[in-house]
Amino acid sequence: MNSILLAHGSGGKLQSELIENIILKHFNSPVLKLLEDSAVLKEKVAFTTDSFVVKPVFFPGGDIGKLAIAGTVNDILCSGARPAYISLSLIIEEGFSIDKLETILDSAKCEAKRAGVEVVCGDLKVVEKGKADEIFINTSGIGFIEDGQALSIKKIEVGDKIIASGTIGDHGISILSKREGLQFHSRLISDCASLSNLVKSIHNPAGKIHCFRDPTRGGLGGILAEIARSSNSGIEIEEERIPVKDEVRGACELLGLDPLYIANEGKIVAFVRREDAEDIIKAMKKDENGKDAKIIGEVVGSHPGVCLLITKIGGKRIIDLPRGELLPRLC
Amino acid sequence: MNSILLAHGSGGKLQSELIENIILKHFNSPVLKLLEDSAVLKEKVAFTTDSFVVKPVFFPGGDIGKLAIAGTVNDILCSGARPAYISLSLIIEEGFSIDKLETILDSAKCEAKRAGVEVVCGDLKVVEKGKADEIFINTSGIGFIEDGQALSIKKIEVGDKIIASGTIGDHGISILSKREGLQFHSRLISDCASLSNLVKSIHNPAGKIHCFRDPTRGGLGGILAEIARSSNSGIEIEEERIPVKDEVRGACELLGLDPLYIANEGKIVAFVRREDAEDIIKAMKKDENGKDAKIIGEVVGSHPGVCLLITKIGGKRIIDLPRGELLPRLC
Repeated sequence: MNSILLAHGSGGKLQSELIENIILKHFNSPVLKLLEDSAVLKEKVAFTTDSFVVKPVFFPGGDIGKLAIAGTVNDILCSGARPAYISLSLIIEEGFSIDKLETILDSAKCEAKRAGVEVVCGDLKVVEKGKADEIFINTSGIGFIEDGQALSIKKIEVGDKIIASGTIGDHGISILSKREGLQFHSRLISDCASLSNLVKSIHNPAGKIHCFRDPTRGGLGGILAEIARSSNSGIEIEEERIPVKDEVRGACELLGLDPLYIANEGKIVAFVRREDAEDIIKAMKKDENGKDAKIIGEVVGSHPGVCLLITKIGGKRIIDLPRGELLPRLC
Repeated sequence: MNSILLAHGSGGKLQSELIENIILKHFNSPVLKLLEDSAVLKEKVAFTTDSFVVKPVFFPGGDIGKLAIAGTVNDILCSGARPAYISLSLIIEEGFSIDKLETILDSAKCEAKRAGVEVVCGDLKVVEKGKADEIFINTSGIGFIEDGQALSIKKIEVGDKIIASGTIGDHGISILSKREGLQFHSRLISDCASLSNLVKSIHNPAGKIHCFRDPTRGGLGGILAEIARSSNSGIEIEEERIPVKDEVRGACELLGLDPLYIANEGKIVAFVRREDAEDIIKAMKKDENGKDAKIIGEVVGSHPGVCLLITKIGGKRIIDLPRGELLPRLC
């Protein structure tokens, strides 16, 4: 492989190989190597970065501005930190409409307010027409971790229940429908949202939650395969418990896609203490972004490193990292 | 003005208007509004972000990887903080060579080591061929501020001496020469470098230094005009004291450019206590990146908000923010 493929950006196996074989060898940081959504620094600071190249920049349920705030806020939340400060860096293609820029900035502002974060620094670059695609946004973020609140895949234990905070695949399919001009699921909108309030309602007191991850690129399946591998845990999820909207299921069947591998932008997967799982579900359901929360599986003592799906007819299927290109530029 | 112009990214007056009129109105953060190189958070953390779109990605004296680390490190240094952690987010055009990517990452690694910072989180996006220009890199950075070490334009006082850490315009002219295939100053290389060691040698003990800024886009003239305006100080600099390499002066004369407005990537402008200026110059000269350091002017009690250049023949010229396009994509 001598050159970058679109699939290298897909959140699947090729991306994972590129990161491990090419990128990580240059940066020998024990924090970076953990590949968690945020780096947790010894000063009890969580630090994360994400560049957004979503296409189209306006989509049902949001735009690149809302997405850039929500995506970075959710990455901070996944470390157990309280999101506090966000940077906003714009790369804009010459000729981009200032009206559209304002709409995007307004979305970012509203989402930052909802999420309880402050945008404190920024940067702006303009490149010639044809040298970027409308607008790319990088947001980096800082959160603060209170004693005992840090989360990590290292805290996952056998017996933990696995919770999905809601229906999966909404973001990916809604972007796809807009991009391809598909009409058959026009009611579907992206789940794009920051989950500060949802997380606040369940991540206190500490100890109940072991690990959070947000199933963005690579989807629920991708994130669970990665967690199984990197924590060397056995994971089992049940197909019939996984919440999927009818529109998403229908679109996936028509297009030959698997909802398990479709991106989400307002969902969280939680690994929680077995005995607290039902209480956590109850608390999540009180939040708009958690109303469809469900226990979808658990961590088992067998098949360490492997995620298995129990299908509706009782079969078992290994859930691996997606290989190759899924849907480019969903975030 | 309905659409984004290249000049909106130039570090001049148009960019400043876009930021003030369009961007800042959405984000009501008192920290962001200061428009310093790093945001200084109440937790004694400095936070900064920068996206790099330099063209070409390899240039005399460096590449986009080295530049991305050095640029962000220098922004953190300008707040008086000790740079500690860096994020690295890549947007890559499909088809980009993995060999080139490795070279860039290796440069970034070496520069991070030199600067004493750790790359702790990252992100990778790939866009279709023709939707970006080879590679764009965002680095954000965190530094920690010790008691009494915070710097700000608010600390500038009448009587302060203004120091330039070395020759100006090297970066901009070396990029231009590579891009345009100019041969007449082939010995010139970019000054691209992180200034951690230089700053460490002079920013301790505290109190001597009032303000640091790195004169990147917009050059020395742009940064001084901005400081004069935002701190409401009167600034006077003397043309004959400003260090400029012969190659840069020659290229500028030929091309009708003013070295004052040409970008630097390894220089710092320091506002220092009058009585300490000579000692600071001596300390700077011991560092490779400060060997051409010079006192170039001072803060005066007259013409608040305005930067004046005393020309070689004794005339006075107002140094304003550059208007319109200078040289696009130098960083």
